[in-house]
Amino acid sequence: MALTGILRPGHAQLRVLDLKESVDWYSNVLGLKNMGTDKQGRVYFKAWDERDHNSVILRQADQAGIDFFAFKVDGVASLNKLESDLNAYGVKTERIQAGDLLETGERVRFEIPSGHLIELYAHKTDVGNGQSYTNPEAWTSEAEIGIAPTRMDHCLLYGPDIEKVQKIFEEVLGFYLVEHVLLPDGGADLAIWLSTSNKAHDIAFVRHEEPGKLHHVAYLLDSWEKVLRAADLMSMNRVPIDIGPTRHGITRGTTIYAFDNSGNRFETFSGGYEAYPDFEPITWTFDEAGRGIFYHDRVINDKFLTVMT
Amino acid sequence: MALTGILRPGHAQLRVLDLKESVDWYSNVLGLKNMGTDKQGRVYFKAWDERDHNSVILRQADQAGIDFFAFKVDGVASLNKLESDLNAYGVKTERIQAGDLLETGERVRFEIPSGHLIELYAHKTDVGNGQSYTNPEAWTSEAEIGIAPTRMDHCLLYGPDIEKVQKIFEEVLGFYLVEHVLLPDGGADLAIWLSTSNKAHDIAFVRHEEPGKLHHVAYLLDSWEKVLRAADLMSMNRVPIDIGPTRHGITRGTTIYAFDNSGNRFETFSGGYEAYPDFEPITWTFDEAGRGIFYHDRVINDKFLTVMT
Amino acid sequence: MALTGILRPGHAQLRVLDLKESVDWYSNVLGLKNMGTDKQGRVYFKAWDERDHNSVILRQADQAGIDFFAFKVDGVASLNKLESDLNAYGVKTERIQAGDLLETGERVRFEIPSGHLIELYAHKTDVGNGQSYTNPEAWTSEAEIGIAPTRMDHCLLYGPDIEKVQKIFEEVLGFYLVEHVLLPDGGADLAIWLSTSNKAHDIAFVRHEEPGKLHHVAYLLDSWEKVLRAADLMSMNRVPIDIGPTRHGITRGTTIYAFDNSGNRFETFSGGYEAYPDFEPITWTFDEAGRGIFYHDRVINDKFLTVMT
Amino acid sequence: MALTGILRPGHAQLRVLDLKESVDWYSNVLGLKNMGTDKQGRVYFKAWDERDHNSVILRQADQAGIDFFAFKVDGVASLNKLESDLNAYGVKTERIQAGDLLETGERVRFEIPSGHLIELYAHKTDVGNGQSYTNPEAWTSEAEIGIAPTRMDHCLLYGPDIEKVQKIFEEVLGFYLVEHVLLPDGGADLAIWLSTSNKAHDIAFVRHEEPGKLHHVAYLLDSWEKVLRAADLMSMNRVPIDIGPTRHGITRGTTIYAFDNSGNRFETFSGGYEAYPDFEPITWTFDEAGRGIFYHDRVINDKFLTVMT
Repeated sequence: MALTGILRPGHAQLRVLDLKESVDWYSNVLGLKNMGTDKQGRVYFKAWDERDHNSVILRQADQAGIDFFAFKVDGVASLNKLESDLNAYGVKTERIQAGDLLETGERVRFEIPSGHLIELYAHKTDVGNGQSYTNPEAWTSEAEIGIAPTRMDHCLLYGPDIEKVQKIFEEVLGFYLVEHVLLPDGGADLAIWLSTSNKAHDIAFVRHEEPGKLHHVAYLLDSWEKVLRAADLMSMNRVPIDIGPTRHGITRGTTIYAFDNSGNRFETFSGGYEAYPDFEPITWTFDEAGRGIFYHDRVINDKFLTVMT
Repeated sequence: MALTGILRPGHAQLRVLDLKESVDWYSNVLGLKNMGTDKQGRVYFKAWDERDHNSVILRQADQAGIDFFAFKVDGVASLNKLESDLNAYGVKTERIQAGDLLETGERVRFEIPSGHLIELYAHKTDVGNGQSYTNPEAWTSEAEIGIAPTRMDHCLLYGPDIEKVQKIFEEVLGFYLVEHVLLPDGGADLAIWLSTSNKAHDIAFVRHEEPGKLHHVAYLLDSWEKVLRAADLMSMNRVPIDIGPTRHGITRGTTIYAFDNSGNRFETFSGGYEAYPDFEPITWTFDEAGRGIFYHDRVINDKFLTVMT
Repeated sequence: MALTGILRPGHAQLRVLDLKESVDWYSNVLGLKNMGTDKQGRVYFKAWDERDHNSVILRQADQAGIDFFAFKVDGVASLNKLESDLNAYGVKTERIQAGDLLETGERVRFEIPSGHLIELYAHKTDVGNGQSYTNPEAWTSEAEIGIAPTRMDHCLLYGPDIEKVQKIFEEVLGFYLVEHVLLPDGGADLAIWLSTSNKAHDIAFVRHEEPGKLHHVAYLLDSWEKVLRAADLMSMNRVPIDIGPTRHGITRGTTIYAFDNSGNRFETFSGGYEAYPDFEPITWTFDEAGRGIFYHDRVINDKFLTVMT
Repeated sequence: MALTGILRPGHAQLRVLDLKESVDWYSNVLGLKNMGTDKQGRVYFKAWDERDHNSVILRQADQAGIDFFAFKVDGVASLNKLESDLNAYGVKTERIQAGDLLETGERVRFEIPSGHLIELYAHKTDVGNGQSYTNPEAWTSEAEIGIAPTRMDHCLLYGPDIEKVQKIFEEVLGFYLVEHVLLPDGGADLAIWLSTSNKAHDIAFVRHEEPGKLHHVAYLLDSWEKVLRAADLMSMNRVPIDIGPTRHGITRGTTIYAFDNSGNRFETFSGGYEAYPDFEPITWTFDEAGRGIFYHDRVINDKFLTVMT
């Protein structure tokens, strides 16, 4: 098939400081659907238009942040092949047994040089998007509960050695570089946006001293008007907004950055162009990176480079 | 890579009845960019945000319709492999030499059971989208000349034996079925929507007695508001509108069908969900197909099944 | 004051064929708020962003249609003055006592030459728009229950002698003509759009043999995207759509015409330019009236002139 | 008539530091139409959808700011009556002869306690909105030159004694209060929004020590998507953005504040509810005023209270 191997971001496990409050926040403010709790007490969510059982998992912890970010692959053969390719490349992998995450098959987990745990898996139960796959409607009432993104879309991670990360994603996992921001000296990248599909990004990295940090998990909205609706709901619910509504120069998507009730940044965004692996990557020089990150403000706000979990 | 082999629709060659008038129409009403004329007199166009040299080619003819529809593949190795797979499957192919189409490499052409000519090619000159690949703006003034779609997106073709077509696209070319409409007896499909990416469709077919017919070529717009702008411009230019603005139940995209000055139907559409090959295809029974095709009117208008070129 | 006398459309009393079903339809499909039932069994509704107690009143009847349409005036002095002006002009008036309609003051009722009952009143209880008038939010959750228009905006009535109606509205009530459509011979008007504010229309009339007919009551939406949402909800609820989403050439508003469960046509519309009494009215000749009524289709559909209640 | 006396904001004369540059900026960036230059060298502009000859007049000066802001009245009788009412109230007036401003009749000018010059006039030549008043289209190509607002809509002025200003506007000129922000002690207003129509504001004032200051002149856009387009164009043209795209809590309009090439702030906004004189004004306490001014950020940025011309 033309779209094979790694298909898309599948799940993110986030650490939250007060699980009960967070369950309420993710259910009613962000508007994800609560899919249940496992024996460890982790709570599972999916976006209304996602078909697989879960995409966001919350775990009670003393410190906010991300435990791991996973991609769904197109079958067990691909899972095995990708693991063996990772190992051949020198990346150690670990198998997590099926069922460790609710309704999720066996996972291949590995740490990347930026200090993040990435997972691959081939199976997650299709629970549908709230409609029959025969003669459906255009959307359901769940599309208007809270911010109600259509899906968990991508994440931006902060850590060191992102040029090594890029090589793994490109040479082993089949991603390609869509855009990148150069460091002031132009000799290496401050940030990279990578795609495994024709989305403008499926994952992105910013070079940062401390490993394993989360900048944001992003959720997709249908339109710029839904971005406004999201901003309104953030204000109604007194959600701290970092920046937005605005546009990114990078990917051209429209966006809001804000913080969940544990301080994890999240993004609600819409749009962005369709990218393809034959595209020459777009380069942003450091002096123009502000306009790349926030197209209207044209400066990187301090929080962008300093606030993360 | 995760997106390999066939990447996307690349070009469509259309027959028009008065080339001079059509060049004006495609330039100023639809708002494609005139990229030049070849020795045969064919005129080449690209959408403003496309990077490759051309996507729509107009040829003067006595009868409107489509000559061929092509997909870009990710390299010569894929081109050779796909040709050999097609031959192994029993599909005869023909090589068209590089340069036959302006700025386009060698093409592999084959006829599918619906009577259409499909082409694959690995090279078309990257002429850019009117901006530098370093520090670009969000869009250019070309984004507001005429309807100004961002790209040629897909086509819908009419012909017989679409179940055989589907097998070639799935088994040889790597496409997957996204949605389909059943015939009244439910035993076979009236129509199929196929994707090679995570777009909801890269090509679609409707079962029809006469082979080789064109229902429409579709052009992508950024938003529902751009769909309104397109409808306004159609009225200002007295372009015959078939239907719309409205929404499709199938793909959930918003849309207008209208006719170019030779009677070729075209679509200006926006949105639609992201599809993936692990998705169970959506099925529409014949009695609900009206709502599937035109979500608001909930009936298939007569023209949908009877007017084509 | 600069905006004095008649302020705006205030209420419409509609006849419905099955009150119980209609209460459900107006509550959950159109998304008005049920404000109570009076002793006669009439049920009262308001749009979520309206402040006055009611704007739509439903009455069980054997035949659908409109009983009367009312305007709010800016005080009792204006009410008395307008009544005396009407009488002086030769229009008979009737007083309906305060409290006949829930939370509504005394009304001055009169019949206009088109056979419709028009009312004026100075008082209706301010019940708020679901928020405090101190430090409110931008909107409330009621803004997403059903189609959820922000207000009842205007109506279009069919009947004879509209030139006489126009004179009363202009010379006595203070309205001004915004747009009009000529009859084929150009000697008189087929239709007139009148405003008492800087809205593009507060009421409109189409010349028609039978007196007292209702073409539609119109409800305001915030945006073209809300018009799409309305169309989607109509399909989800199998509401018969007459036409749309589309744009009017007249007023330039975007629109859907559809039918309530008794066959009363209603409009959900958005936009339109701001009009002022010093504007030269816009004239549509009969041959271009199709484009004036439905800007994209450019023909008056048969239903527009033949289906009413 | 129901809308009588003062109809709407008519023109603003602005001081600019480099007239030639400003003419280019107002023509090509803001997208107003250059209507000509008078003998004094002042340059006149109108928004594309305005019908009267001019609405923005630029004058070369050493210091940016506003010379005067004017309202159109519905005729000479109203002009005379309003002048006599002003005089009776104790406001001195001055007559500026017809023709002093191009295509503009005699003006009545007076200074209000905030130190601003306000003008009334009854005549300005109707030059049309680029279309015939018979059978027009929905918009013209001028609607896409630069930011291209549909009209000059209102202004926000800074100066002392705004409670005295409010009394003149309410008691003499027929305006009514729509919203207001209280000072910290709640005893008087920091800011007031006034309407002469059913627009949410035709003029607004903020209490400020220095008289005669301009906070911004506002231009109307059709939609939130046009607000995004305006922000994009501001970035493409490197226009300094103060804040936005965002929403106001006050009026609920969507907005951008930015600065022209002389440092005069301007607003491009869309939406906002329809107000009426029978509405109870909305009150914002000082501690919630940030949310009132900028609904998403929920703080008054420093520039709002300190940067003006």
